[in-house]
Amino acid sequence: MKADIITIGDEILIGQITDTNSVFIAEKLNNSGFEIRQITSVADTKEHIFEVLDEVSKYTDLVVITGGLGPTEDDLTKQTLADYFGSKLILNEDVLEDVKQFVRNKGFTLNERNIKQAEIPDNCKIIRNKNGTAAGMWFEKDDTVFISMPAVPFEMKEMFEVRVLPLLKEKFKLPKVIHKNILTYGFPESSLAEKLSDWEQNLHSKISLAYLPSPERIRLRLSMICDTEEKAEKILDTEVQKLKNIIGENIFGCGAGFLQDSLAEILNEKNITVSTAESCTSGNIARLITSVPGSSSYFKGGIAAYSNDVKTALLKVSEETLEKYGAVSKEVVEQMVKGQLELFNTDYGIAVSGIAGPDGGTEEKPVGTTWIAVGNKEKIIAKKYTFGTRRLLNVRFASTRAMDNLRRFILGFDIN
Amino acid sequence: MKADIITIGDEILIGQITDTNSVFIAEKLNNSGFEIRQITSVADTKEHIFEVLDEVSKYTDLVVITGGLGPTEDDLTKQTLADYFGSKLILNEDVLEDVKQFVRNKGFTLNERNIKQAEIPDNCKIIRNKNGTAAGMWFEKDDTVFISMPAVPFEMKEMFEVRVLPLLKEKFKLPKVIHKNILTYGFPESSLAEKLSDWEQNLHSKISLAYLPSPERIRLRLSMICDTEEKAEKILDTEVQKLKNIIGENIFGCGAGFLQDSLAEILNEKNITVSTAESCTSGNIARLITSVPGSSSYFKGGIAAYSNDVKTALLKVSEETLEKYGAVSKEVVEQMVKGQLELFNTDYGIAVSGIAGPDGGTEEKPVGTTWIAVGNKEKIIAKKYTFGTRRLLNVRFASTRAMDNLRRFILGFDIN
Repeated sequence: MKADIITIGDEILIGQITDTNSVFIAEKLNNSGFEIRQITSVADTKEHIFEVLDEVSKYTDLVVITGGLGPTEDDLTKQTLADYFGSKLILNEDVLEDVKQFVRNKGFTLNERNIKQAEIPDNCKIIRNKNGTAAGMWFEKDDTVFISMPAVPFEMKEMFEVRVLPLLKEKFKLPKVIHKNILTYGFPESSLAEKLSDWEQNLHSKISLAYLPSPERIRLRLSMICDTEEKAEKILDTEVQKLKNIIGENIFGCGAGFLQDSLAEILNEKNITVSTAESCTSGNIARLITSVPGSSSYFKGGIAAYSNDVKTALLKVSEETLEKYGAVSKEVVEQMVKGQLELFNTDYGIAVSGIAGPDGGTEEKPVGTTWIAVGNKEKIIAKKYTFGTRRLLNVRFASTRAMDNLRRFILGFDIN
Repeated sequence: MKADIITIGDEILIGQITDTNSVFIAEKLNNSGFEIRQITSVADTKEHIFEVLDEVSKYTDLVVITGGLGPTEDDLTKQTLADYFGSKLILNEDVLEDVKQFVRNKGFTLNERNIKQAEIPDNCKIIRNKNGTAAGMWFEKDDTVFISMPAVPFEMKEMFEVRVLPLLKEKFKLPKVIHKNILTYGFPESSLAEKLSDWEQNLHSKISLAYLPSPERIRLRLSMICDTEEKAEKILDTEVQKLKNIIGENIFGCGAGFLQDSLAEILNEKNITVSTAESCTSGNIARLITSVPGSSSYFKGGIAAYSNDVKTALLKVSEETLEKYGAVSKEVVEQMVKGQLELFNTDYGIAVSGIAGPDGGTEEKPVGTTWIAVGNKEKIIAKKYTFGTRRLLNVRFASTRAMDNLRRFILGFDIN
């Protein structure tokens, strides 16, 4: 089955925003067995949308459209689709109820524009939206399915995953594709590829492999088109086991999670509490750890110890140490671990101090230099890293590395 | 002048990578006065590329293509373009020299694949590449210009800015476009649109307006095509002034920033220090504030006060208050502000306590209920909000709202 994605909006065409919606949709469609033929971004003008719909529907079975459904004057997609599919807009009571509910929850008053959001083409299937005022629409014409969704990412994502995908799986006879995601951390992509090259060359011929790298992890995706799920699962499991034999300690999970999710499992299982003391990452690790629902069972609290005063007053880092070794040093992060274990009365602690940049670097300690310590009352391990020159990326690198180091510490693995 | 962008590569179509090249090219073209008609992502197959080139050249004056120029088997674009423009590949000595130089600089040995990179269609203008082995190509056919560039972002970016853009400005007679970005917070999109509808209807006829919403802000973009920059700047400034008269307090900046950037300016200018005490946002506000380079001049530190123990021990929230009103209450966030001003010795403090979800909600305090307080030693203002049901979004909403409340507090605006 072939699918096209169309994203509508001037902001994409003038390069003001990156189109991440199409990435999300493409991955989900691909995982479900669709072959994505083309992604097209167009302006919200009737003539152009007509042309593109005419053109792509020559080649494709499914067209997923995002954007142009907002309440403002420049959002013309709904009327355009109504015209294209020969229908007219009528007020839909269900959608109006959703809109009213949404507006009420937000504490706003219903206005004319909100009500207009409930006017829907009379020949489409409605896809409800619980996170915004623009409903999704499902049209069919000449054997092609057209789905229109709002462009606000969190509205679109939930709508697509929870409501649209199940309908698509009902409508289309899709090949079965089984995916296994293996989440790794610690090797850069080229080293990982080298380490896995033998395994990769001997992979079962029906399995395709993709490397999906980001600063937080490299996800390895194994995909297999199959007739029977059970048999494919077995073959995939065998390959995953081989992978574990090669890079076991660098695999922190499978599925869709991040290091904080894997850490959550470990901490819950072992009934361990943690805290954080962060200088350059300034709350980012605390935020990531608590992004996991239920994290209050193992996370007590953290300090964003941005100034040296906070390091000495709250974390009991000695002024002497700060003066002698500087805030970005082994000695300081070690004391930051000790101090927080006292302060928060936790079992384990994470401490980070680094030069995030763009300023503050020296010849000896260039921008990107970061000390990370993890430990408990018995033992603390501190390591130095030299990340890059970009501030926000350095914070991401340091935060992920710190969580991985804690994972390794608790599991008894080496920390590099 | 109309322009199309075509990005070639399977990795975009299966959702493996985000297409950032087209964002870069679109912005540069738009700033140079081109109107981007469409961005199209396709697989590297001859048939599909032929179809797309035929289709887009019906409508457009310029087609910028990236991708498919690598040295591996799956990169077919160069041969495809040679076929499309009726030419054949011949070894080009200049390009071969660039390739040799590049390979030598990297410390590699020249191989067969490298040499093949110097084979170029015989009827194109060559665009040299100093950062890689794939040369760019400039074709012309039936009044349309076609430019092909490699997809490696840093190779493409330099090639496009340094070599392609000047050639385009010579070739095409382009209009001038001026953009103004106004950053707003506090009104949902529909209310903002309603508030601005009179102003919008009376906008200068040559100005186009776009709403670019996200949980952190609504960006209003005014664009004007003009002959003389000075005149356009004046007209745009007049419209921006009118806008300020309508929603002045909700405008926190212009350009590309976020609330933390606007806050940085205010705090620096007024020489004010701040701290944070965060329960449900657990470090996210501290992270956002310190995402701005130089934030150490006004940010001292913060507490992720996740457990009640931390609230009482560090922030001196009274146990009685916690018991009587609960952690998510006016009284507690007020005490969290007071406590942190003592603890960090700062001028202003931000405190947040809420139920981020998915669990922990009650009938009286459903998921999303959040108290935010900002203040100094003289005065504290606490407000209650009811955000949504999604944990990570609630954290984003609360963090942005808290920073805006501090901005409003310092500037003497009402806090809603």
